[in-house]
Amino acid sequence: MSNTFGTIFRITTWGESHGPSIGCVVDGCPSGMELTEKDIQKELDRRRPGKSPVTTERKEEDKVEILSGVFRGRTLGTPISLLIGNTDADSSKYEPIKDLLRPGQAEYTWREKYRTIDWRGGGRASGRETATRVAAGAVAEKLLKRFGIEIIAYSKEIAGIASDTNGLDLTKPEKLRALIESNAVRSPDMEAAAEMEHAILSAKKDKDSVGGIIEALAIGVPPGLGEPVFDKLGADIAKAVMSIPGVKGVEIGDGFELARMRGSVSNDPFIIQRGKISTATNRAGGIIGGISDGMPIIIRAAVKPTASIAIKQKTVDYQKKKGSEIEVTGRHDPCIVPRAIPVVEAMIAAVLADHGRISGQIPGKLM
Amino acid sequence: MSNTFGTIFRITTWGESHGPSIGCVVDGCPSGMELTEKDIQKELDRRRPGKSPVTTERKEEDKVEILSGVFRGRTLGTPISLLIGNTDADSSKYEPIKDLLRPGQAEYTWREKYRTIDWRGGGRASGRETATRVAAGAVAEKLLKRFGIEIIAYSKEIAGIASDTNGLDLTKPEKLRALIESNAVRSPDMEAAAEMEHAILSAKKDKDSVGGIIEALAIGVPPGLGEPVFDKLGADIAKAVMSIPGVKGVEIGDGFELARMRGSVSNDPFIIQRGKISTATNRAGGIIGGISDGMPIIIRAAVKPTASIAIKQKTVDYQKKKGSEIEVTGRHDPCIVPRAIPVVEAMIAAVLADHGRISGQIPGKLM
Amino acid sequence: MSNTFGTIFRITTWGESHGPSIGCVVDGCPSGMELTEKDIQKELDRRRPGKSPVTTERKEEDKVEILSGVFRGRTLGTPISLLIGNTDADSSKYEPIKDLLRPGQAEYTWREKYRTIDWRGGGRASGRETATRVAAGAVAEKLLKRFGIEIIAYSKEIAGIASDTNGLDLTKPEKLRALIESNAVRSPDMEAAAEMEHAILSAKKDKDSVGGIIEALAIGVPPGLGEPVFDKLGADIAKAVMSIPGVKGVEIGDGFELARMRGSVSNDPFIIQRGKISTATNRAGGIIGGISDGMPIIIRAAVKPTASIAIKQKTVDYQKKKGSEIEVTGRHDPCIVPRAIPVVEAMIAAVLADHGRISGQIPGKLM
Amino acid sequence: MSNTFGTIFRITTWGESHGPSIGCVVDGCPSGMELTEKDIQKELDRRRPGKSPVTTERKEEDKVEILSGVFRGRTLGTPISLLIGNTDADSSKYEPIKDLLRPGQAEYTWREKYRTIDWRGGGRASGRETATRVAAGAVAEKLLKRFGIEIIAYSKEIAGIASDTNGLDLTKPEKLRALIESNAVRSPDMEAAAEMEHAILSAKKDKDSVGGIIEALAIGVPPGLGEPVFDKLGADIAKAVMSIPGVKGVEIGDGFELARMRGSVSNDPFIIQRGKISTATNRAGGIIGGISDGMPIIIRAAVKPTASIAIKQKTVDYQKKKGSEIEVTGRHDPCIVPRAIPVVEAMIAAVLADHGRISGQIPGKLM
Repeated sequence: MSNTFGTIFRITTWGESHGPSIGCVVDGCPSGMELTEKDIQKELDRRRPGKSPVTTERKEEDKVEILSGVFRGRTLGTPISLLIGNTDADSSKYEPIKDLLRPGQAEYTWREKYRTIDWRGGGRASGRETATRVAAGAVAEKLLKRFGIEIIAYSKEIAGIASDTNGLDLTKPEKLRALIESNAVRSPDMEAAAEMEHAILSAKKDKDSVGGIIEALAIGVPPGLGEPVFDKLGADIAKAVMSIPGVKGVEIGDGFELARMRGSVSNDPFIIQRGKISTATNRAGGIIGGISDGMPIIIRAAVKPTASIAIKQKTVDYQKKKGSEIEVTGRHDPCIVPRAIPVVEAMIAAVLADHGRISGQIPGKLM
Repeated sequence: MSNTFGTIFRITTWGESHGPSIGCVVDGCPSGMELTEKDIQKELDRRRPGKSPVTTERKEEDKVEILSGVFRGRTLGTPISLLIGNTDADSSKYEPIKDLLRPGQAEYTWREKYRTIDWRGGGRASGRETATRVAAGAVAEKLLKRFGIEIIAYSKEIAGIASDTNGLDLTKPEKLRALIESNAVRSPDMEAAAEMEHAILSAKKDKDSVGGIIEALAIGVPPGLGEPVFDKLGADIAKAVMSIPGVKGVEIGDGFELARMRGSVSNDPFIIQRGKISTATNRAGGIIGGISDGMPIIIRAAVKPTASIAIKQKTVDYQKKKGSEIEVTGRHDPCIVPRAIPVVEAMIAAVLADHGRISGQIPGKLM
Repeated sequence: MSNTFGTIFRITTWGESHGPSIGCVVDGCPSGMELTEKDIQKELDRRRPGKSPVTTERKEEDKVEILSGVFRGRTLGTPISLLIGNTDADSSKYEPIKDLLRPGQAEYTWREKYRTIDWRGGGRASGRETATRVAAGAVAEKLLKRFGIEIIAYSKEIAGIASDTNGLDLTKPEKLRALIESNAVRSPDMEAAAEMEHAILSAKKDKDSVGGIIEALAIGVPPGLGEPVFDKLGADIAKAVMSIPGVKGVEIGDGFELARMRGSVSNDPFIIQRGKISTATNRAGGIIGGISDGMPIIIRAAVKPTASIAIKQKTVDYQKKKGSEIEVTGRHDPCIVPRAIPVVEAMIAAVLADHGRISGQIPGKLM
Repeated sequence: MSNTFGTIFRITTWGESHGPSIGCVVDGCPSGMELTEKDIQKELDRRRPGKSPVTTERKEEDKVEILSGVFRGRTLGTPISLLIGNTDADSSKYEPIKDLLRPGQAEYTWREKYRTIDWRGGGRASGRETATRVAAGAVAEKLLKRFGIEIIAYSKEIAGIASDTNGLDLTKPEKLRALIESNAVRSPDMEAAAEMEHAILSAKKDKDSVGGIIEALAIGVPPGLGEPVFDKLGADIAKAVMSIPGVKGVEIGDGFELARMRGSVSNDPFIIQRGKISTATNRAGGIIGGISDGMPIIIRAAVKPTASIAIKQKTVDYQKKKGSEIEVTGRHDPCIVPRAIPVVEAMIAAVLADHGRISGQIPGKLM
């Protein structure tokens, strides 16, 4: 088990899907930063289920409480403990199928590793765990904002339908955010959004699910974040994003497309822009040699379709070690991409906050 | 700077491209394992340049010396220090261009971060650094082999030309390895290999470079490796592979393709095979919920084209902060994919050895 | 800030003295271990104030709740989150003196480091923080007990009065524990206990405080725990114990006395005892070369007198930067030694559990 | 095995006593610092044996080579690899006694832990390992000096003979250092020095050995170093010092003496001195609540007598598991205290450099 992430800005999360509560401890946040529950609730509400037909029907309030680390509205530099209750857990559907391995789910490997597992709602392997990442990430995002860094993610692709993201105006993050939040699938492309929504509902009708690709931008990151050779910024982001349930691929900048280019095309020429060094293109996605170069950081994550589907699937009974069939009838998202977006943002924020602290660009006290 | 990788099986590397030598320290290897310089040299020789027309002409012997941690042919459980001399460094070509930023190279970000840099041959940002990863990885691979784990990587794609990898026989790793090593580009598909080689030489003639995709398999990994929720096996592999110079994307199993499937297709059905639980397909690439499931682990890495190309490129002079042009005339690989293959294997081996130690599946002493 | 301790068995604590609650997250505990709130409450009750005239009058219930990591009475291998409410915090006494530095207390250094501090009751620098160490330690102690390891600590000395500890019967830990718990100062020597109690009350009457020395034994530790060269068992114990508020010295075995012996006396001769290798004496205190040798581990910790005393003391006003006087009139222990005993046990347990996990002697699952 | 120390300023050491060489890798040193082999050699020469009748006769040159991390006299921010040859190893004396456990030595516990050991000269458990600590520490000391921090250690006590250290002038570190270096036992008290030397030689004549107490001062440390609650400055120093071979006790400030004081005496009153907050006394030894307070940091380490003595001792044969006798006739120091002094300085320097980096008081680049 390793439930702590980061070197100086460090997140520790805990909790099972159907336990009394879940939560996290954020260590290494500088002292003197304004922080309220509202800052965190805002992000949790974005991840919260039950808000549109494309998400699960589980109705979690996801109300966060700050238990430590903040005094009279300001951080103390001490660990910030955040608590979120589990209020709408319904374990009854899981009891009858507890020995049937749900295809694509973690029960099999967890049983092999831990033997004793909490089979209710996926236990700690449930997507519910990501709520605590979002809570912790909200603290990181607040901190980064003070240093002019904004993280914005959206659906780049769902069910094979791509968003047109040419011409996104990165100079107005709040406006871009509003655009993305204006539809249920979080695409900045309204036409694609409608198609995506339709594709999700169509899969849902078929008791099936779909996946997609999340694109995230980190804007305003100064040059110099990233610690060669092993803790390169891209390497740490890759780990952070790949640790999110359902993510099976990560690329930076032009990613896999770079593999098909020639060097004369893939290299970003250096230029002088407003007296400062910059690059004419950004195929590298803001990271060269593992260190941020001042351009927007661009990350894409491949999200597999939700594993829990109501279609009858072949599987085995773990105890009896024999073949069986399963219909997973809990409440599940037919597509987790829209709700995974704040999680991707949170994990990228955690990495940037940590590298900000490690490099000294973010100091230990803010006032 | 962070030059240490791993929690218990830990690698620390050091060295600049044109310094007196490079090396690494491997900590956490169990005691009692047979180990000789030959075991390591074998892997170094695979990464060594100067062996075919598709690689650089720098002729490094890459001769490794074991300085500690081994006594009378067996490991002691103490740190294994490995030293490799730099014998063919030629810094003369770098002096005249030391203030010109080479597009796609790390000088710009390194100068921003460290100010003082060793501009000779890329310094520590040079691909030469990866020789020490291969040396350390050889120790990990030897260890894993004792536990029946084999890691094999090859060119899945170069310059857009794909290897046909259907029907690779994973039950005979040594035969597969021989097949891969039989051509200069390390493809298991002889026809594709010829085309790839041609494409590389054609780019070289144009003073340009090409990239590609490396596919790696880890065969024989038992279920139970990987530490949820942050140190998932796939997350740690993603970090390890993304930390390799030139890698800009990582995917596991069907990776980005999963984003376009439906759940009913992407889920690997559980089956009973020879009395044991297995999966009928392996779209997950051997990792479910961050933990190995016993199936082959499948990883793909996108490698960008070599940044150093002899074509004239636009750039800037770092000191004068003004536009310029550059022709990078050192000795460079027109395609680093073939030589990066042992590096990818080494990094995956390092992760698996570490998770084997963390989980206790690999004990601290072997005899 | 660094509020996480350990490599695999890892404790993260949080909370301020007068915040809503305090707590901890215990990661890396093997799955399958029986664990209830009672196991933890028992240890918390030993640390709890308000039980005798020699302790503070603050009446904290210190009721612990397990929020995660345990399912139907058994650990899951996932993080165990423990919560303890702060119910009897009285901040009123601190408001008037919040800018006066209390001699021997951490406000000065905390203000220099964090600027923003929670001045109520010492904030996170309060001894109250140690309740969470005890809670986490109780989990470690339960785990160690399964492997036959017992940790027992007691007052070796208070206010210069020494306990006679010759002839303690280590073969009956429960009986020894009962003896120690039979008096308010936790000495195994009843006569000394009476004198110690008297000395504490006499200091209290004088509005003053006293210190002492805690001796801890770890019995049943197998040979082989400890990771040379930096994470030696004694080194990690020294750090663990020195991190407890008020501790200013740590020694192992004969400790400082060894500095005055000759080698012919200080060396413990090896002997064969019941067919196994042992030592005739135990001046090394169970650790040779940083690794446990199978003998009882012996640790002593010097605890300074409680810093908060009601006597008028010279000090300065932090804001006004000028001289002042202070009488600290909160509720304080005239001697923290008795209540620090379970804290010392907890920290030693945390180290041993971690080294048990690192060395593989304690596996990741217990059933 | 854990051969890496520190979080950001990180030391990794390697090497066996009779292997071809020993060395270390210093990671996290800021870029732009002037550094030459001379800076390191100077400290190694202080630890080097064979310089006086009170030390071993093994004549190691201990010549250090910088293999990486420095370019044209300045650090690069990349790992600094340091190599020291083993030139005077004589293994012949160890062969006949390789199965006899030397009392007080680590063979027994190492064999239990690793089974395979290098029995020549203690292998990695030899005091020779500390040369690499000194080499790494020299880099830390150079760095600290740039920030006005000086570390000075000396023999506080040898064979029960105490140095009078009242009135040491801490405002002139170089002069104090010269005083200490003026005698073979490194005491600042010339009279005590003569007695100590006599006591050591007398023990040597008796084929025996003696121990002592090292006192170290860190002068010029600014307030704010140390990370509550677990990585307190005193806790990390305690670990660092306790990890040195032969050290069995550590205390800070008045240490164990504090246990016998009353709070009204042990508390250091805050005062205003030259407009700044200071303390009238320094019983706390420069650390309050785990954070440096600006006063000199005072540490004492108890060093046991050298375990290797030529007197006949009782022991056992490890293989035959039966009683035997041993006379350890290698070349050993009759008292390691004088040579351990630079080691204690080095370890304290490593901790302070790391905390300087973690807290941001020491930045990542110096020019």
